Amino acid sequence: MEFLNEIANRHPDAVSFAPGRPYEGFFDVEDLHRHLRTFHRHLVGERGMDAVRARRALFQYGRTKGIVHELIARNLAVDEGVHVDPESIVVTVGCQEAMLLVLRALRADPRDVLLAVSPVYVGITGAARLVEMPVLPVRDGPAGVDLDDLVARTRRARAEGLRPRALYLVPDFANPSGATLDAGVRRALLRVAAEEDLLLLEDNPYRLFGATDERPPTLKALGGERVVSLGSYAKTAFPGARVGYVVADQPVDLGGGRTGPLADQLSRIKSMVTVNTPPIGQALIGGLLLEHGFDLTKANLREIGVYRRNRAQVLGGLAARMPDAAERGVSWNSPAGGFFIVLTVPFPVDDRLLDHSAREHGVLWTPMHHFHGDGRPLPHLRLSVSLLTPDEVERGLDRLVGFVDEQLGRS
Amino acid sequence: MEFLNEIANRHPDAVSFAPGRPYEGFFDVEDLHRHLRTFHRHLVGERGMDAVRARRALFQYGRTKGIVHELIARNLAVDEGVHVDPESIVVTVGCQEAMLLVLRALRADPRDVLLAVSPVYVGITGAARLVEMPVLPVRDGPAGVDLDDLVARTRRARAEGLRPRALYLVPDFANPSGATLDAGVRRALLRVAAEEDLLLLEDNPYRLFGATDERPPTLKALGGERVVSLGSYAKTAFPGARVGYVVADQPVDLGGGRTGPLADQLSRIKSMVTVNTPPIGQALIGGLLLEHGFDLTKANLREIGVYRRNRAQVLGGLAARMPDAAERGVSWNSPAGGFFIVLTVPFPVDDRLLDHSAREHGVLWTPMHHFHGDGRPLPHLRLSVSLLTPDEVERGLDRLVGFVDEQLGRS
Repeated sequence: MEFLNEIANRHPDAVSFAPGRPYEGFFDVEDLHRHLRTFHRHLVGERGMDAVRARRALFQYGRTKGIVHELIARNLAVDEGVHVDPESIVVTVGCQEAMLLVLRALRADPRDVLLAVSPVYVGITGAARLVEMPVLPVRDGPAGVDLDDLVARTRRARAEGLRPRALYLVPDFANPSGATLDAGVRRALLRVAAEEDLLLLEDNPYRLFGATDERPPTLKALGGERVVSLGSYAKTAFPGARVGYVVADQPVDLGGGRTGPLADQLSRIKSMVTVNTPPIGQALIGGLLLEHGFDLTKANLREIGVYRRNRAQVLGGLAARMPDAAERGVSWNSPAGGFFIVLTVPFPVDDRLLDHSAREHGVLWTPMHHFHGDGRPLPHLRLSVSLLTPDEVERGLDRLVGFVDEQLGRS
Repeated sequence: MEFLNEIANRHPDAVSFAPGRPYEGFFDVEDLHRHLRTFHRHLVGERGMDAVRARRALFQYGRTKGIVHELIARNLAVDEGVHVDPESIVVTVGCQEAMLLVLRALRADPRDVLLAVSPVYVGITGAARLVEMPVLPVRDGPAGVDLDDLVARTRRARAEGLRPRALYLVPDFANPSGATLDAGVRRALLRVAAEEDLLLLEDNPYRLFGATDERPPTLKALGGERVVSLGSYAKTAFPGARVGYVVADQPVDLGGGRTGPLADQLSRIKSMVTVNTPPIGQALIGGLLLEHGFDLTKANLREIGVYRRNRAQVLGGLAARMPDAAERGVSWNSPAGGFFIVLTVPFPVDDRLLDHSAREHGVLWTPMHHFHGDGRPLPHLRLSVSLLTPDEVERGLDRLVGFVDEQLGRS
């Protein structure tokens, strides 16, 4: 992603459909102070700490698994109806650290491999590369995951002497494909996972941002210990807190005759990565959760509205500007939520073309081949709709369609 | 360290000489708010950001290498007279992440190994275990590092087909030994490192806390690109910010025909570990540095006083309580600063004995074998003097000497 950031930095005036960042129009510095005070009051009030212990909780080294685990458990109960033991939660420095901890724990041996629904978020492939764990792609297909391909891949890997440990996927409004698994597919996936003895690593940062209020149950809600939940507050609160978490309630052998949740093994690894998640960041997220009664759906009503508006505006704007798209070989998907739309064009898309788009047309997006890993250009580009104002969307679409027209030789 | 934490949790009323935590008597929650406001003013004032960009810097994803690198460079110039390019600094989630990034970068191959002056801080051995990089101990000896042993170890490892990449050490008031390298030894170490083609990983969290104001130059000041500086603000500011850094100005091949500082390679790794260090934590440290004109020696005058007083009180208290220590086979070192004192006793010390000390005598300390790695009990225990009040020191010493007396059969 380094090159993509460089292009963005070189073209600060370009309209960018590139970054998967949350909308920033509602950020307010005073919120940080208020959340910190709210959490401090919680320490002293609800948790009964004296002033010395409350200060210690904020200033000193702390519990490796975190200090807002109970608040996160309450958040999961309110938003998802999922009830987990707070002791099975590890609070992490963003969801990225959660991914790293889980993969490091699963990768006990060079034969251990990860399966991932492809196209796949670069954060998980990066973490896998870091722990030297190969990633085997599984086709997404129209259902969001191709279960036949999952079974075939798993069995082929085992026949080759590999040990597929888990399948990583984003079941709601995936990054980058926008795909969502319906409830039936989720149940079928859990059956396959049980039959093939695979863990499911469920990553779900965009789940609250659907086009409607309907949501199928999470995999965790349906699958219990078959599922490790990778959690992020980057989109539902703000990225700068760098607070994520993992729910890992699978019983594992911790050595010395002790059995405990996988979370305890992750905690040991975490003590060698970051020691503990900054309590100040945890305090900010804790304060926000307390302020909203642990209901992030309600806390994000304005943001949900922005994402719905932007998605509709981009989809409508593409249709209005390219009424003859089909005959020109251009198409796009219509995800039921999330941040991303995939535009398909009749020409290969690579970083060189992105550079051209930035320089000559003032519009940025993400070449889809970055989410496939073999580096070969693909005829797809990802549009993120999360960060822009309505005016920027209009200007950006004009430029984007100008770029596509030019490539089609019609400018 | 899990077991040590468990013992501490089971005995909340014990006097603890165990944790290497900074003194907490001067922490004040209002400081957090003030530092955040100071840093925000700096973004808008000194760095000329408008309100939108300043909010973005605090709330959004940010620069992987961090946003207080320039302030850290100024801090190094003021406190150490070391001038480094801010682009060679990576701001990390505590010094632990800095260690992990550096070892992951150095460990390109299973033959790569790390040398470390022994006894050694468990954070570096943990990070090495995580990246599957063996650690070869180097004797400390009276000078703080035994250069003959360093040369012998390095050559033996090479003869065995291994690739020793770097030597890790804490040159000032080491954890746990308390040893300090004088300026002559530092220069000799740099010559050996050049001859043997080793990087030096300099970790220096206790450096400001000397018994006097005299300080030999840092290895970085003397050795330039031969030295990677691992930095921590956990002791000079507070651990809860979880802000550390690494200065890595060594030129390396970054691929694609690009050469750049090692920091840029570390940045790529960091993007797969934590994405970026929480900007809020960076803001707190940045605000503190700004408030004190980048002079942490001055900012820590009260703390320096506490550590000097405590160290003197423990050393004096041991001598007063055990005038016949020598004939009883008991001794201790007298480090010229830092948090730690090593007590030597004529019996082996292990976790079982610590448990007994906690239960029967109400006093905690750290068995030294934890810093050696082979798990065999040693006749040494580490006392940390950083966290206690004068009353606690007196009570703790009474209990500690009671425990030693009992073990010597004289109670």
